[in-house]
Amino acid sequence: MEDILHHQSSQFDEELGRLRSDVLRMGGLVENQVATAIEAYGACDPRAIEETIARDQDINALEKQIDDESAQLIARRQPTAVDLRLVFGIIKIVTDLERIGDEAKKIAKGVRRICAAGSQPTQFAPAILHLAETVLVMVRESLDAFARLDSGLAQKVIVDDNGVDAEFKSIVRQLITHMTEEPNTISMVMDVIWIARSVERIGDHAKNVGEHVIFIVEGQDVRHRRLSSNGGAV
Amino acid sequence: MEDILHHQSSQFDEELGRLRSDVLRMGGLVENQVATAIEAYGACDPRAIEETIARDQDINALEKQIDDESAQLIARRQPTAVDLRLVFGIIKIVTDLERIGDEAKKIAKGVRRICAAGSQPTQFAPAILHLAETVLVMVRESLDAFARLDSGLAQKVIVDDNGVDAEFKSIVRQLITHMTEEPNTISMVMDVIWIARSVERIGDHAKNVGEHVIFIVEGQDVRHRRLSSNGGAV
Repeated sequence: MEDILHHQSSQFDEELGRLRSDVLRMGGLVENQVATAIEAYGACDPRAIEETIARDQDINALEKQIDDESAQLIARRQPTAVDLRLVFGIIKIVTDLERIGDEAKKIAKGVRRICAAGSQPTQFAPAILHLAETVLVMVRESLDAFARLDSGLAQKVIVDDNGVDAEFKSIVRQLITHMTEEPNTISMVMDVIWIARSVERIGDHAKNVGEHVIFIVEGQDVRHRRLSSNGGAV
Repeated sequence: MEDILHHQSSQFDEELGRLRSDVLRMGGLVENQVATAIEAYGACDPRAIEETIARDQDINALEKQIDDESAQLIARRQPTAVDLRLVFGIIKIVTDLERIGDEAKKIAKGVRRICAAGSQPTQFAPAILHLAETVLVMVRESLDAFARLDSGLAQKVIVDDNGVDAEFKSIVRQLITHMTEEPNTISMVMDVIWIARSVERIGDHAKNVGEHVIFIVEGQDVRHRRLSSNGGAV
């Protein structure tokens, strides 16, 4: 794949390279945001909570910057074929990365509400943290897939999202049972449900990134196609 | 605005015009999906439920088609300035339209669960329907803003989203109170909460469309900027 991204114009190569590394930098920040939000959940750590909320701005700024670079690159370089697919894919990927940042911020705000109310959500922590770890791996792998333009890894992320959806549904069922048994905890449990929802949404966005990577590499639009666990369309 | 979109090449004009009308066609389908899903909510109408779920495929197919047309237009016509902003904005807008379609489908599935359980969510219908009507107007106006490249109307949609967020929070508070008072209704009320959440998300996406329209018209990226009710940045 690296070969087909090599051009006559080294200036063009440099610009495309910068664009790709900016996306990876944004991805790194986003990954870190998710990790910090989850860390805050486990520990009611006010520093981690406020950091996650404040740093969402950096991610928003990077989204604008990358969009701007992409538009300029299209206008100046008029990319075609795989280069155009790369820029097109990047335009879509940054939207998903920015939304992952939003969800991390929502998680941090949910944790802040729970901790401010004097509760500690330790009772549900194992389930939420397990889901979050899976999703964090998906985010990391979707970025690795983009960095290496590895459509196999991208496909793995897409398939992994099925497990996340099933786990999320099971967590919600448990939380509903808990609310029914202890109605006085409903407000707090609702915040845990919103947090679980945000984690699940992050999985959706990592899956979307995987789909965009496959589009870049293979020129195929795999969105809205169901993938079986061996990666074949079903 | 029409003037600056007029070109030497009538072929180019025709292609840009087709792209714009495809986006509006997709927008019309999406708007209709939201309306049908909400109609189903009010009436437990199985036909409306199944129609909404089935038709989400048409929206997904249109998203792919428009993305494809956009990429081809960039490759063949190498647009610059306002034309490039238009295509760039369209690439972002279709993502939001597709997500609105997803949320409409989620609403329909929530309604199906509630009605299948033999409940009728009439008790909460007025609040949900009120929120949905506001959001439906936002979707319609964001599409009108795109059709007419009207940044004033786009800005109105952005401001309206603040009201939707506040109304959503108030609905959730009422639903939590209801769950606490009647724990045997928790499962059903949770489905109503998911439906309210989807309606609120549709408002977010309409707001995003508004932001993309302003970018197309004014070349300004207004995302992540707070707007006051008179439209000025605060």
